[in-house]
Amino acid sequence: MNVTDFQWTKGITVKDLVKSYGNIGYQSVELQKASEVIVKMKKNSAKIYLTFTSNMVTSGLRGFFAQLIKLKMADVIVTTVGGIEEDIMKSTGEKFSLGTFSADDVELHEKGINRVGNILIKNESYMNFEDWVRPVLDKLYQKQKRWAVSELLREIGLLLDDENSILYQAAKNNVPIFCPAITDGAFGFHLYLFQQTHSDFIIDVVKDFGNILFTTSQDEKKGVIALGGSISKHHAILCTLLNGGANYAVYITTAHKTSGSMSGATTEEAKSWGKVKDESDVATVIGDVTVMFPLAMIGALEELNENGLI
Amino acid sequence: MNVTDFQWTKGITVKDLVKSYGNIGYQSVELQKASEVIVKMKKNSAKIYLTFTSNMVTSGLRGFFAQLIKLKMADVIVTTVGGIEEDIMKSTGEKFSLGTFSADDVELHEKGINRVGNILIKNESYMNFEDWVRPVLDKLYQKQKRWAVSELLREIGLLLDDENSILYQAAKNNVPIFCPAITDGAFGFHLYLFQQTHSDFIIDVVKDFGNILFTTSQDEKKGVIALGGSISKHHAILCTLLNGGANYAVYITTAHKTSGSMSGATTEEAKSWGKVKDESDVATVIGDVTVMFPLAMIGALEELNENGLI
Amino acid sequence: MNVTDFQWTKGITVKDLVKSYGNIGYQSVELQKASEVIVKMKKNSAKIYLTFTSNMVTSGLRGFFAQLIKLKMADVIVTTVGGIEEDIMKSTGEKFSLGTFSADDVELHEKGINRVGNILIKNESYMNFEDWVRPVLDKLYQKQKRWAVSELLREIGLLLDDENSILYQAAKNNVPIFCPAITDGAFGFHLYLFQQTHSDFIIDVVKDFGNILFTTSQDEKKGVIALGGSISKHHAILCTLLNGGANYAVYITTAHKTSGSMSGATTEEAKSWGKVKDESDVATVIGDVTVMFPLAMIGALEELNENGLI
Amino acid sequence: MNVTDFQWTKGITVKDLVKSYGNIGYQSVELQKASEVIVKMKKNSAKIYLTFTSNMVTSGLRGFFAQLIKLKMADVIVTTVGGIEEDIMKSTGEKFSLGTFSADDVELHEKGINRVGNILIKNESYMNFEDWVRPVLDKLYQKQKRWAVSELLREIGLLLDDENSILYQAAKNNVPIFCPAITDGAFGFHLYLFQQTHSDFIIDVVKDFGNILFTTSQDEKKGVIALGGSISKHHAILCTLLNGGANYAVYITTAHKTSGSMSGATTEEAKSWGKVKDESDVATVIGDVTVMFPLAMIGALEELNENGLI
Repeated sequence: MNVTDFQWTKGITVKDLVKSYGNIGYQSVELQKASEVIVKMKKNSAKIYLTFTSNMVTSGLRGFFAQLIKLKMADVIVTTVGGIEEDIMKSTGEKFSLGTFSADDVELHEKGINRVGNILIKNESYMNFEDWVRPVLDKLYQKQKRWAVSELLREIGLLLDDENSILYQAAKNNVPIFCPAITDGAFGFHLYLFQQTHSDFIIDVVKDFGNILFTTSQDEKKGVIALGGSISKHHAILCTLLNGGANYAVYITTAHKTSGSMSGATTEEAKSWGKVKDESDVATVIGDVTVMFPLAMIGALEELNENGLI
Repeated sequence: MNVTDFQWTKGITVKDLVKSYGNIGYQSVELQKASEVIVKMKKNSAKIYLTFTSNMVTSGLRGFFAQLIKLKMADVIVTTVGGIEEDIMKSTGEKFSLGTFSADDVELHEKGINRVGNILIKNESYMNFEDWVRPVLDKLYQKQKRWAVSELLREIGLLLDDENSILYQAAKNNVPIFCPAITDGAFGFHLYLFQQTHSDFIIDVVKDFGNILFTTSQDEKKGVIALGGSISKHHAILCTLLNGGANYAVYITTAHKTSGSMSGATTEEAKSWGKVKDESDVATVIGDVTVMFPLAMIGALEELNENGLI
Repeated sequence: MNVTDFQWTKGITVKDLVKSYGNIGYQSVELQKASEVIVKMKKNSAKIYLTFTSNMVTSGLRGFFAQLIKLKMADVIVTTVGGIEEDIMKSTGEKFSLGTFSADDVELHEKGINRVGNILIKNESYMNFEDWVRPVLDKLYQKQKRWAVSELLREIGLLLDDENSILYQAAKNNVPIFCPAITDGAFGFHLYLFQQTHSDFIIDVVKDFGNILFTTSQDEKKGVIALGGSISKHHAILCTLLNGGANYAVYITTAHKTSGSMSGATTEEAKSWGKVKDESDVATVIGDVTVMFPLAMIGALEELNENGLI
Repeated sequence: MNVTDFQWTKGITVKDLVKSYGNIGYQSVELQKASEVIVKMKKNSAKIYLTFTSNMVTSGLRGFFAQLIKLKMADVIVTTVGGIEEDIMKSTGEKFSLGTFSADDVELHEKGINRVGNILIKNESYMNFEDWVRPVLDKLYQKQKRWAVSELLREIGLLLDDENSILYQAAKNNVPIFCPAITDGAFGFHLYLFQQTHSDFIIDVVKDFGNILFTTSQDEKKGVIALGGSISKHHAILCTLLNGGANYAVYITTAHKTSGSMSGATTEEAKSWGKVKDESDVATVIGDVTVMFPLAMIGALEELNENGLI
C-alpha cells in the first residue's frame, strides 16, 4: 500500500479522516488499523474486554465508555477503583473542571482542590461521595455479608440513574466490571471503616477472579481493547490467556516497551499466544488515549453502523 | 470550564470532534486549544511560520502542507533537506510504500529498500532523484553562481508541476522555504559533486539568514506552528525572537521537556519572549504529528472557512 | 549553583559520579537530588515506603531490594503480585535469562518461553511455582481461614531461605509487604483453585487496607520512594495521604505527566499535601529504574554509611 | 546469560556498576552493551564519530567531551551551532547556573535570564559573546574570504586557551568539528551582520560536506556514537553511509522510534547497512544523555585504560 497525500475537504467526517490516516504513516497508520481490528472483533462476534485506568474516567471519556457499553461494544470491563469512585461522583452530580498541567499546587491545596493532570476535583466531591457510599454499604450488607467485587459493583450500578454512568449501563446491560484492587482508593477506606463495625463483611477478590475467568471460554473468540496500562490491562490479558489467548488486541498507551513495563507492552507479544493469526489482528497505538481512542472507536462505530452491526 | 461526557453521534465531523476535545481532558484539551490558537493567528493577520521535519514529508502530510500553503495558512516554511528531496521525488513520480516498524532490516537492505519508521523508500527513488537534480544544478548555475538556499529552492519549485508539491505551491504563492542545513542529505552530496567541477558555485547560507530575518519585522504579528523538533523548529523561533518574539505559538511534538532538548521545549517559554499576552495564545500538544496536526489544523480550517477567512 | 565541567578520573566511584551529576544538568541533577532526599528521609527517621512494579523483580534489582530491606532502608513495601511470584521462583531456584526487545515472539512461544522486555522466563518456571505454592496454601489454611494479604506474604517469606529474597528479608526484618491486587497473576489463579475446594478460605483485602494505614501515623515523618507507576505507587501515596501526607518523596519513572496517569504524576503534587516544606524534599527522575535507582540509592547508601546510619 | 541479583558493595566503582548492569535487565543491559561497543570501536581502531546537540554543551558534559577528544576517543565531532557558541562562552569566562524545569519564565525574562530545561543563561553572556566574536571574524577575514565551517571552527579553537573547551581540544588534536547548520544561532546572526559589510565573505557549507566525506574511506572501520538526535546524528550517519556504512553504532536518546523521527531511529537500522556483523556491534540506550553517557563511556574508558589503549 502506498503513502498518499492527505488533503482537507470541507466538512470532512471523522470516519473519512480515520480512513485517510491509513495512508499517511507512523502512528496514524496504527490508529486506522486499530479501528479495523475493532471492527473485526465485532464482526467475528468476539467477546470484547475493554480496560481503562481511572484518569480516563476523570476525563470526559467516561460518558463515551457508558455509551459503548450501551451499544454492546464491551462485554467485560476492567478498571481501577478511582474510576469507580469518579463515575459515582459524576452520577451524583459532582462537576470536575479543567485546569492546567502547570498549576500552582500549593495554592490549589489551600483551596481544597485536587489535580489530576489538567483536571481539577474538589475535596467536597470526595466528602459527598463519602456521604453517598456509607448508607449504600449498609444496604448491601443487609443483603449479604460476602461480596465478590463485580457483584458489588453491579448492585451499585443499579442504584445509579444516569445514562452516562459506566456502572449504570454495565449493570443494565449485564456487563460485569472487574476491579482487581478495590481497596486502592477512597472507596477502600470506606470499606475498611465499615468492616471495623461489621467484621463479617467480606470482599471476596478470589471469587471474583473465578468470575472473570468464567466470562469466556477456550472456544469463544476474544478481543482485548486496553487503554493505558496498569493492572486493568494486565488483568484482561491474564484472563484471556488462561482461556487460550485473545484473537484480537488493540492497545493504546503513552508508554514504550523499552522499560519492560506492562503499560508499555505491545501487541507483538499477542502473537506469541498462538491464537492471533496475523499482523492484521493486532494494533498498538502510541499516544494520549483522550485523543486516540475516540478516533479509533468512532472509525469502527461508523463502519459497524453502516453494516447494521450496532 | 467543566469536563463534559463525550458521546458519539452518527456521522460526526472532525470539526465537532475537535470541539468536544476541549472538554475531555489531558492532551485532547491541548489539541483543541492548538486549533483555537491557529484561528487566532489568522484572524489577527499574524505572519505564520510553519516548520516540519523531513519524516513528515516522507508521510502523507506532504500533500496537506502543500494545500496549506495554497490556502495561505503558511507565510514562511522551515524544514530539513530530506523533506526537500522527498517532495521532489514524489513530484517526479516516485511512490513510497507502507511497511511495519518491526521490519527485518537486513532483508530490506538486500532488496534495496530504506525504512523510515513504517514507511519504505526504494534505492531506485534516490537514483532517479540524482538523475533529475544534476541537470537542474547545471541550469541554475547558468543563471547565477551564488545562491541563497531559499532562492535556489524557489527556482526548483518553479520547475515542478505538481499541485501536491510543497516546493511548487511555495514558489507559486511566494512563500519562502528555509532549510538551514541544506547539505545534510543526498542533495548535499549532489551539491558537493557539482562544486567539484564548478568551484565558483556557492551556496550562501549566511545571506539566507538575512532573508529569513527580513520575512517579518518587530511591528508585525507573528505565529509559529512547529511540528516536531530539530533545527526547523529552532530556526523559526530564533527568527521570530530576533524580530521581537512571536505572539502565538503551537508546538506539536512527541518529545518531552525533561531532557532540555529543543524538540521537547514547550510553549511555556514563549511567555518569556514578552509578547505573548496570556495562556490562550500558546499550546503544546504531546503526540504524533501525523494524527495530531490534521485534527488541530482541520478544526481551524473549518472555523476560518465559515468566517470567510480562507 | 553553577554548571560544572565533568571530567573522568580513573577508578571513579559511583558516589563521586552521583555527586558530579548534581552540577551537570537536566535529569542528572534530578538524580543527584533524589539521592539527597533519600539521605534526608533516613537522617530524619522518616518511615520509608518503597514501591516497585513486578517487572523490576523480574530484573536483577530484586536482590538489591532484598538488601535494602536488610539495611533498614525500607519500612513498608508495596508491589504487584507478579513481583511476589517471581521472588518466590528465584528463591526456589528458577533462573531468568536475558534476551532482546525485538525477539521473535512466535518462535519463543513455540519454545515455551515468555518475554518481559529483554528478559525471558520459561513456562517451566511457572509450573514449578505451581508445584511449590499448592502445599503452601494447604499449610496456611491449616493455620487460619481468613488472611490479610500482608500477613499471608509474611508467612510465605518465613518459608523461604534466601538472603536475596524480598519476601524472606521482609519477613525476617518485620517489614510488611502490601499487594493491593493479589489476584492479578498466576498466584491469583492458584488462590482461586484452592478456594474451589475450600470455600471458607478468604483473602481479606479490606483488613489489609487497615494494616497499611496503621503502619504509620499523623505524627510520624514519612517518605515515599516510588519506582515506576501503577497501583504500587498509588497505594503508598494514598496511605501516607490518609496519614497527613508524606514529608519526602522520590519518584523514578519513564512516564510523563502529560497524560494525567498515576505513573507519570510528579512530586510537584506532593507540595500540595501541605507537609513538604520545600523543593529540597522531593525529586522526580525521568528514566529507566534499572539504571537510575541503583545510582540514586548507592549515592545515598555511601553517605549514610559514612555517617554511621546504616 | 542469566539475570543476576544486584547488590551494593561499599565504595563500588562506576566500572563495577556498569559491569553489573549487564545482568540486571531492560535499559541497564543496553547501557552496559553500549560500553562494550565503545571498547570494540577503539580496540578495532575504528574512526569514531561523536555527535551531540547543543543542550549537552550547555550542560556539564561539555568538559567531558573535551576530555574525550584529548584522550583520542573521538576522531570527528558533529554538533549544532548552539554548542559552538556555548563552548566559546564558557571558555571566555561565562558561568551557567542551575534552575528548575518549572521556573517562572515571565519572571526570568524580566531578569534577563534564558532557560534551557533546568539550566539558566544570562543575556549578558550572549552580549559578551558578541563582543568576542566580532574581532575574531575580522581576523579570519584578513586570512581568507571563503571558509568551510570546520576550517573556521578550527581557527577559533586555536584562539581559545581552555583545557575544558571542545573547540580548543579539537583544534589541538586535529579533530574536525562539523556543524551543518552554522547559521542557526546567535553565531549565524553575527556572520550575517559581518557579511553585510563584507559581501565577499563566504561560509562554504558545500565544501565542508566534502571535508566530512574525506574524514574516512570505504576501507576504514567506522563507529558512530550519537547522543540525542537532530542533524548532528543524521550527518554522521549520512557520512559513514556514503563511505560504506559504520561497523559500530551506539545511540543514546530519549526519543522513541514510533514517530519515524531521526532522533528516535535505533541501531537496528544499522544492520541494514550491511557492514554491522551482528547484534554485539550496536546498542541503543533510551534515556537522558547526562546520566547515561558518562556511565557508558566511563565503563569503556576504564577498560581501555587497563588495556593500555588510552
